Amino acid sequence: MKEPVKTIRDTDEDARRLARKLIRGARFGAISVIEPGTGFPFASRVLTGTDVDGAPIILVSGLSVHTDALLADQRASLLFGEPGKGDPLAHPRITVRTRAERIARDDPAHDRLRARFIARHPKATLYADFPDFAFFRMTPQSASLNGGFGKAYVLEAADLLIASPAMADVAGLEPGAIAHMNADHADAVDLYAGAYGRSRKTGWRICGIDCAGLDLCNGDELLRIEFAVPLGQASELRSKLADLSRSAREK
Amino acid sequence: MKEPVKTIRDTDEDARRLARKLIRGARFGAISVIEPGTGFPFASRVLTGTDVDGAPIILVSGLSVHTDALLADQRASLLFGEPGKGDPLAHPRITVRTRAERIARDDPAHDRLRARFIARHPKATLYADFPDFAFFRMTPQSASLNGGFGKAYVLEAADLLIASPAMADVAGLEPGAIAHMNADHADAVDLYAGAYGRSRKTGWRICGIDCAGLDLCNGDELLRIEFAVPLGQASELRSKLADLSRSAREK
Repeated sequence: MKEPVKTIRDTDEDARRLARKLIRGARFGAISVIEPGTGFPFASRVLTGTDVDGAPIILVSGLSVHTDALLADQRASLLFGEPGKGDPLAHPRITVRTRAERIARDDPAHDRLRARFIARHPKATLYADFPDFAFFRMTPQSASLNGGFGKAYVLEAADLLIASPAMADVAGLEPGAIAHMNADHADAVDLYAGAYGRSRKTGWRICGIDCAGLDLCNGDELLRIEFAVPLGQASELRSKLADLSRSAREK
Repeated sequence: MKEPVKTIRDTDEDARRLARKLIRGARFGAISVIEPGTGFPFASRVLTGTDVDGAPIILVSGLSVHTDALLADQRASLLFGEPGKGDPLAHPRITVRTRAERIARDDPAHDRLRARFIARHPKATLYADFPDFAFFRMTPQSASLNGGFGKAYVLEAADLLIASPAMADVAGLEPGAIAHMNADHADAVDLYAGAYGRSRKTGWRICGIDCAGLDLCNGDELLRIEFAVPLGQASELRSKLADLSRSAREK
């Protein structure tokens, strides 16, 4: 039996898009850290969200092995991509090498990260403010994407992070825009989920908006919708959302 | 807000049983290794099976990061336990610290491991014999079990491994016993899946037998049935299987 030649493919826009959807559309991932004391690589499960620039965010207990580990050694990787039914190796997944940074409660970014994380994981309100829980920002360094058998790609940090001049402005608009869309345009949100996420359900809500797309949630389900072109200015958000509705109706 | 006290619970038989079912009933897991060169802890997805003593077995490509890593440093951990629907942190999972050992093709254990792995993952026949693929035995050193919020346990290797004097004899009987059960007692296998695995499907087949239990598969589904008491002698296997049928009918 001869083995097929397997090489790393050239990273194209499809690979970048798949990578971003895997990271930004994840509810959880497997984190790999170096365990203090033993030096063993240690894998465990964490809930995940994202910062407005697409960097993964985790909320972890100070009693866990991974928190101790991240405080001793910033290096960690996160595996994203749920296997679902069928062959587990046929489903795409990505390993992101990251550097972990604990976000103190008085950090200027803390409240924004907390609000975005809670919007994605409402049950985390129960423990997010416990004194020994903390958010960590996991800044991507590089990644290995496996899109299925023989579809391996190497990605750089720039492939994964959002770099728009409108980032801070959009972050400022985010809470109001989410509240407005969910209250007054719930029909449009369901339309997005149907057209861009192939969902047949109703009851979707927006739980995150950034320059590169929308996060939609419905109970324990999460959908990431990536814009074709990221926002260059915060003022484009309104027309972008209207365009998405128009295109969805035409689908 | 006050945090509830969370401690490591005393390991009892329920915890050991849950740990074994998570490991032995897994089709895949997240492996954590130390990446050569960068020193980064690296998480990726692997298909898993077990040896007759319950040690996890993986089949990996020589082109993967994890294979390079395991050849450079034996230390690895495996995260088992699929999240399924609902809160990902409410589902039980276990991290097993292991030492990885490559099983050469001329190793006396190779053919047995290959047969057991292929029975569990029939599609792996397509690549199991490629020259750069190899089986690794992942011998458990210890484990951290998380049975859901606040249910943390520490387990030792002896909690996870099967230690029966009948191990070699049962391994010798395994291929014939599987073929006989699947050919002549398919109704009993479906009965096991219904009574002990709460399955309503038919078409289950036995894909593994060891001193501590049975592995049942049906398409891409896998069920682990643990015996209440492990076999002490290979001659007990026949009556054990008959007892399981009788108890299942009475359920």
